[in-house]
Amino acid sequence: MISQEKNSGNADTPGVSVRTGRAHPVTLRDVAEAAGVSTATVSLVINKKKNARIADETRERVSAAIRQLGYRPNAMAKNLVSGTSRFIGLVADGVATTPLAGQIIHGAQDEAWKNGYALLIASTEGSRDLEADAIAMMLEYKVRGILYSTWFHRPTDIPETLREADFVLVNCFSPEPGAARAVVPDEAQGGRSATEILLRRGHVRIAFINAATPALARDGRLQGYKDALEAAGIPFDPDMVLEAAPDQEGGYGATKELLRRNVTAVYCYNDRMAMGLYDGLRENGLSIPDDIAVVGFDNQEVIAAHLRPPLSTVSLPHYELGAAGVRMLLGLDGAPIESAVKVMCPTIERASVTAPPAA
Amino acid sequence: MISQEKNSGNADTPGVSVRTGRAHPVTLRDVAEAAGVSTATVSLVINKKKNARIADETRERVSAAIRQLGYRPNAMAKNLVSGTSRFIGLVADGVATTPLAGQIIHGAQDEAWKNGYALLIASTEGSRDLEADAIAMMLEYKVRGILYSTWFHRPTDIPETLREADFVLVNCFSPEPGAARAVVPDEAQGGRSATEILLRRGHVRIAFINAATPALARDGRLQGYKDALEAAGIPFDPDMVLEAAPDQEGGYGATKELLRRNVTAVYCYNDRMAMGLYDGLRENGLSIPDDIAVVGFDNQEVIAAHLRPPLSTVSLPHYELGAAGVRMLLGLDGAPIESAVKVMCPTIERASVTAPPAA
Repeated sequence: MISQEKNSGNADTPGVSVRTGRAHPVTLRDVAEAAGVSTATVSLVINKKKNARIADETRERVSAAIRQLGYRPNAMAKNLVSGTSRFIGLVADGVATTPLAGQIIHGAQDEAWKNGYALLIASTEGSRDLEADAIAMMLEYKVRGILYSTWFHRPTDIPETLREADFVLVNCFSPEPGAARAVVPDEAQGGRSATEILLRRGHVRIAFINAATPALARDGRLQGYKDALEAAGIPFDPDMVLEAAPDQEGGYGATKELLRRNVTAVYCYNDRMAMGLYDGLRENGLSIPDDIAVVGFDNQEVIAAHLRPPLSTVSLPHYELGAAGVRMLLGLDGAPIESAVKVMCPTIERASVTAPPAA
Repeated sequence: MISQEKNSGNADTPGVSVRTGRAHPVTLRDVAEAAGVSTATVSLVINKKKNARIADETRERVSAAIRQLGYRPNAMAKNLVSGTSRFIGLVADGVATTPLAGQIIHGAQDEAWKNGYALLIASTEGSRDLEADAIAMMLEYKVRGILYSTWFHRPTDIPETLREADFVLVNCFSPEPGAARAVVPDEAQGGRSATEILLRRGHVRIAFINAATPALARDGRLQGYKDALEAAGIPFDPDMVLEAAPDQEGGYGATKELLRRNVTAVYCYNDRMAMGLYDGLRENGLSIPDDIAVVGFDNQEVIAAHLRPPLSTVSLPHYELGAAGVRMLLGLDGAPIESAVKVMCPTIERASVTAPPAA
């Protein structure tokens, strides 16, 4: 039901007796009439033309009328005059399927608002048609620029129409070096941090259950595992790297192979695999962390903190990716960028890791 | 890096030699020059003024120039002329923390686009300040209306500024009957459907682990449980209703109490509780579904299908809530609405339910 009643003016505004609802939005003309000036004068006051010769008393009368009537300047009209809009577009491919995309939105929005921009968000759920429509719509609204984001970290080709805007890739990048600005998570650092959680507690025999499917995260997280071992003086043993589907079923299915390797700890490619592995280890009568320590990756909201025991992991910095993308778009992040900027993945320690059992 | 190079015209457009990037967006004047007509003529063609006396040949020349130059009419200018915008605002309070809000966005966007509207989305993450800013921004952009959504189903007060727009509440409602249009999930039907999954397999002694915290879903899902039992001719036994925190820890913690009740099946308030209960039942040496059948609620993406065994549950219809909200806002959903419209929660059957063990 549309609220159509007219509200009485509140106690602060005795001079104004009614304030209309949507049926009659307050216009520039209403303000002019209330202040006893021309609409041109109101316009000059609203647009803060300091040089215009308007008496201070008149300025104040107009401002008072604006406040009293609840007048809202038309942002589109202002944008049209300035030739640009105060919109930043955000194309996201997985809002409906993962909370990670939501974090990108949240970070981008906070940073955009801080700088006086509103976000125009389009969720494409991977459809090229929706994506084309979304970019066309953003171009029609003369956005300041577009953040083009993916919910998992991957190379991407750049849609032709995207090139008509100033743009930044978020959580993805062009395979062609220098072709586009991009901000991505530092997978190798994340993998190294995850492994270090285990090394710090004294583990030496640490397996890594990696994703079997090709992905940038797969290469980076493996590199980080190798780097951490090397820095700790532990020789890399390829036999300690298993591969499985990157979900609960994959982690569960890897249990048997893992147990053949006489390890005291395991680092999983993601939290979902760790969740499946928990089930597998339990079925084999093993206790976490006493018999085997487990570390994940992602810090996935509904899983990581709520496993039994809660899972130590490394967090994907999606909020920061969104915020950094906006700063990059607006040129607030300093030096010109040659290639993708990497954002750190923070470590989150919980109860799934303790020192290895005495030998 | 902003793409600044000028591309050569492609093979289809021999008459146009350059197409500029963002540095020089194509203007109405560019189109007029290319077509050899006045800007006024171009404007008439773009705005489809059928009555304007323009020769078909001229119309075609202008259209060809628009295509060749890749000219995009300024949507804001068009909106300004029409006095309204083609935006629908969506205020959401939990985009960053739950994929459920993402489903509302996805459904609302699909329905909005189908009707020629773009979504202006604001994620407030529960902050009243962000919310006020978001609504003010939407009003400045003269949105057609606003969907005000919450990520969990609850009563809400209506922000004063929201009343300045045409609005619909999504997944929430005003406690004052008739105060606002609203679309919400049918919790009672969902609870009934969840219980019926178990009744159909022959279970009679069915416990319900409800949320201990007051929530609309808590009352509705309990009502549905009672309704289903009554329809099956099974007397309601208050002792079969337990209460716990609505998360994994709550479900796990309820195990002991549950096992005192000699049940063959249990319906949990949500999937997270079912996940915790799985751990508790396993620790007691019980097998799902053979020793005890389990049903959840929500069909939460990263959990329900990936538990061991996969969980039978009832799905929260967030996509449909978003879509229905847009239809309601645009007046496409038929009759005037007296109170909140309820959307059905579909049943999803997986392997966590089988017939009860022989007595």
